[in-house]
Amino acid sequence: MDNKYDVVIVGGGPAGLSAGIYTARDKLKTLLIEKGIIGGKITEAELVDNFPGYPQGISGLELTGKMHQQATKFGLKELNAEVISVEVDNERRVVKTTAGDFIARALIIAGGSDWFKLGVPGEKELTGRGVSYCSTCDAPLFADKHVAVIGGGDTALFEALHLAKFAARVTVIHRRDEFRAFIAVQEKAFAEPKIELLLNTVVEAIEGQDVVQRLRLKRADSGKKYVLEVDGVFIAVGLKPNTDYLREVLPLDEQGRIIVDSGMRTKVAAVFAAGDIRSNSIRQTIAAAGDGAIAAITAKNDIEQ
Amino acid sequence: MDNKYDVVIVGGGPAGLSAGIYTARDKLKTLLIEKGIIGGKITEAELVDNFPGYPQGISGLELTGKMHQQATKFGLKELNAEVISVEVDNERRVVKTTAGDFIARALIIAGGSDWFKLGVPGEKELTGRGVSYCSTCDAPLFADKHVAVIGGGDTALFEALHLAKFAARVTVIHRRDEFRAFIAVQEKAFAEPKIELLLNTVVEAIEGQDVVQRLRLKRADSGKKYVLEVDGVFIAVGLKPNTDYLREVLPLDEQGRIIVDSGMRTKVAAVFAAGDIRSNSIRQTIAAAGDGAIAAITAKNDIEQ
Repeated sequence: MDNKYDVVIVGGGPAGLSAGIYTARDKLKTLLIEKGIIGGKITEAELVDNFPGYPQGISGLELTGKMHQQATKFGLKELNAEVISVEVDNERRVVKTTAGDFIARALIIAGGSDWFKLGVPGEKELTGRGVSYCSTCDAPLFADKHVAVIGGGDTALFEALHLAKFAARVTVIHRRDEFRAFIAVQEKAFAEPKIELLLNTVVEAIEGQDVVQRLRLKRADSGKKYVLEVDGVFIAVGLKPNTDYLREVLPLDEQGRIIVDSGMRTKVAAVFAAGDIRSNSIRQTIAAAGDGAIAAITAKNDIEQ
Repeated sequence: MDNKYDVVIVGGGPAGLSAGIYTARDKLKTLLIEKGIIGGKITEAELVDNFPGYPQGISGLELTGKMHQQATKFGLKELNAEVISVEVDNERRVVKTTAGDFIARALIIAGGSDWFKLGVPGEKELTGRGVSYCSTCDAPLFADKHVAVIGGGDTALFEALHLAKFAARVTVIHRRDEFRAFIAVQEKAFAEPKIELLLNTVVEAIEGQDVVQRLRLKRADSGKKYVLEVDGVFIAVGLKPNTDYLREVLPLDEQGRIIVDSGMRTKVAAVFAAGDIRSNSIRQTIAAAGDGAIAAITAKNDIEQ
């Protein structure tokens, strides 16, 4: 496999695929490196109904499958490997991966983000056995069951609304005394009779024999502890950008996302970022794809100058 | 017709439609105002093959038709009218149009840009009869003919390369002594045997009986005048953002485009811009649609705060 490319893209979600469509179409020799499955986190979405151009909606898997096909048609090469580190000097950018080193004239980082963990006893042990981070993926497994959703933002309430289509009862547990979600989303959730809310409440542990059976909870105000019996728990406390390996290389914002200008340039020459991983991202597929195109065009201009 | 809206969007191209999909879906009462046809300039494109999600390509008309259908499904209202002026104070934004005044809590300006005209005799009279501003639209009409392209930037040379697939001979005419296009694009154009270059040359008139037959040219250096027989002329001298009515209201950049931050906020509270009309736009459909979503989400957050 060649190890020198005009452009190396890290991450195969909508941002990386869009960047690859643009650079490959412009006849830049491009390698896309993805550690998991091509398509990224949005592949978990059963229905994406707000990607402009698909009025009936489309699954995340199908949408990114189409982007993948398009990029491949234009000549994008890809590699299934994890990026270990990036070394940058004036001349070149070296991307060290589990499948070898690659040299790029321009590097586009589009590695997205992962779900934050709650970090309580039982969470890791029971993941996939009642603990989930993706209601779209797992909601049907909890038909007529009682599930909890942990979190107070849009994602938490969207997950609760989605789960209410399947479960008998959905308890949303949030450590603060009010939700951060948009008012319209809150109103929808409050109007759903299957959804009940536990504010000022902290999860201390997830317990169960083989599968989730109960949560150990504590009231944040009174300190009172008690147990809630549930069949599943969906953790929706946010996303962590995949930038740990970049801390020494690129300036990041306080959430660990890569700081970019309007052309998706980072502070380091010929290194670009696009999608959820960049600062101020709205974390929407259409915006990630837009970012990817911008990064690609800026990269092309910068390296051809 | 109601005259008060949560969000008024000016312009019905990909940026405006995407913004409308987002705000209407979020149950913000939204009016989109378009002076021409819904879809914008991209409706002239026969084949858009780099919009991520359509691996076989799609016509600009069909793509924006789908976006339109999607926005309408979510409840977007629309109005065919021209915006005359915008008045902004702390409380509200008043949009004065040829069909009355509308009051918005948030205003998203996505009015795109128009092709610059050459401004020579014959240009207007022969438009659609040999004079074109869009090779993607009209190139097939000039199979085995001789066409001229006027301009010296990327667009001009891209148009020339595209036309060379159809025409027998393509003459690129540029008033300066060198091209502004990217070197890689120039090299491609210079390597194409069907393309010839006339530098230091100005078009003084476009002439013909019913259809384009010849150009009256003048050398910029020697002043020598002569005639070039052609069957068509493609004018590619740039785009003019539709911001004339905003000069007193919003800070614009030197090209007349609206200055925005990463959330598509202008310098004026609750006024946003998206797409080709904003500064630093890459003028691509996917990026315009991304901008629209960003403007919509920022607008929602700002007015609901």
